[in-house]
Amino acid sequence: MARWKIRVEYNGGPFSGWQRQDDRATVQGELEAAIFRFSGEEVLVQGAGRTDAGVHATNQAAHFDLERDFPALKIREALNAHLRQVPISVLEVEAVEDDFNARFDALSRAYIYRLLNRRAPPALDKGRVWHVKVPLDVALMDDAAKVLLGQHDFSSFRAAECQAKSPVKTLDRLDVVEEDGEIRFHVGAKSFLHHQVRNFVGSLKLVGEGKWTKADLKSALEACDRAAGGPTAPAQGLYLTEVNY
Amino acid sequence: MARWKIRVEYNGGPFSGWQRQDDRATVQGELEAAIFRFSGEEVLVQGAGRTDAGVHATNQAAHFDLERDFPALKIREALNAHLRQVPISVLEVEAVEDDFNARFDALSRAYIYRLLNRRAPPALDKGRVWHVKVPLDVALMDDAAKVLLGQHDFSSFRAAECQAKSPVKTLDRLDVVEEDGEIRFHVGAKSFLHHQVRNFVGSLKLVGEGKWTKADLKSALEACDRAAGGPTAPAQGLYLTEVNY
Repeated sequence: MARWKIRVEYNGGPFSGWQRQDDRATVQGELEAAIFRFSGEEVLVQGAGRTDAGVHATNQAAHFDLERDFPALKIREALNAHLRQVPISVLEVEAVEDDFNARFDALSRAYIYRLLNRRAPPALDKGRVWHVKVPLDVALMDDAAKVLLGQHDFSSFRAAECQAKSPVKTLDRLDVVEEDGEIRFHVGAKSFLHHQVRNFVGSLKLVGEGKWTKADLKSALEACDRAAGGPTAPAQGLYLTEVNY
Repeated sequence: MARWKIRVEYNGGPFSGWQRQDDRATVQGELEAAIFRFSGEEVLVQGAGRTDAGVHATNQAAHFDLERDFPALKIREALNAHLRQVPISVLEVEAVEDDFNARFDALSRAYIYRLLNRRAPPALDKGRVWHVKVPLDVALMDDAAKVLLGQHDFSSFRAAECQAKSPVKTLDRLDVVEEDGEIRFHVGAKSFLHHQVRNFVGSLKLVGEGKWTKADLKSALEACDRAAGGPTAPAQGLYLTEVNY
């Protein structure tokens, strides 16, 4: 038996998220099917993060076990051949210790949220960015974002269905910048609550359009109540970009 | 009568190029149909460059005339509403002099060619980059590219069906750089021959993989014969990014 760590890129658009579901296409489901077609083995692919429906990844991490032995490069080529019909690509395959766990061993995760701030709709990046027509002030958003840094009870930005044991997390990075003609939110932490990044972005958008001040964002955080947080930004702008071990 | 200049972004994937064709979807055809649906006027939309099937644009320019008078913003919003089903977006609409011509008045044009150089196929940018698995040397390509700068007879990089009067053009910029995990070719000139950028990229790829030297590229240029040039890189990696007046 050998345990393998993989790095995976995917376009979340056509998938009902990462986690396997009986009757829907998911990233985990497609990966497990591809592994079965290539190796004949039924495996469980455990991801570092269970991205929601529509959320993309440039660098998700996962692990699985195979009874039979294969060279790492052979696994990557075989999986990509079997994934040809779907927008999932296996970037790297690496042998790891038997007790490596992609989810629990992750030291930190990073996301990027892409927002297109102009009147005209996206033609090239349809389904890949959040299109916001009202002009947003990037400097105001970036400044306000800093109140979220550090250790807090993030209940105000936590989805009702979140399964984390505690709402207390430590946010290491939240920068709002203009890059390549769009607004990008760079977010980093050891781990995140369900919808946390999208709820941050939805709240910061209120700051950017002048509906909330930095103090309003701080009050929302301190309320420790989802009803006090801003709306959830759409999935299509979110990218899981790093999982560090 | 008023003449309008527009700036347009499109994903070339679903289109048989810019130029109107009776029985196929083209960017010009979709724009003319949208203008008709909104204004009731049959117009000719003249583009700065007739991009090929599959070629994208972040900033194509074009002009057309309308008998009836409308505010510029109204035209943009109406066109984008009528283009909702296709990946074409009108970024800007501006009133121009009656003798303005998007094609003949352009002082310079710029293209970017995107090449993804890794073993794993693109999941997020499928149809948006040229996927090349063999490792390419960016510094070698960038250095060799410089032999193409300046005024030359570019017959070696000109498609058979090219309609330009002369094969002599002046190339102002050709930089090969690594950006955002991919290789990008930045190309600029007053005007281009048909397939010129894609033929440059196809030839530079030979340099990048060590099949051609800089001297080979120079010989290819000096042969003034398409048979001496490298292959044509695929359309899907090419973006028209600037038209300057």
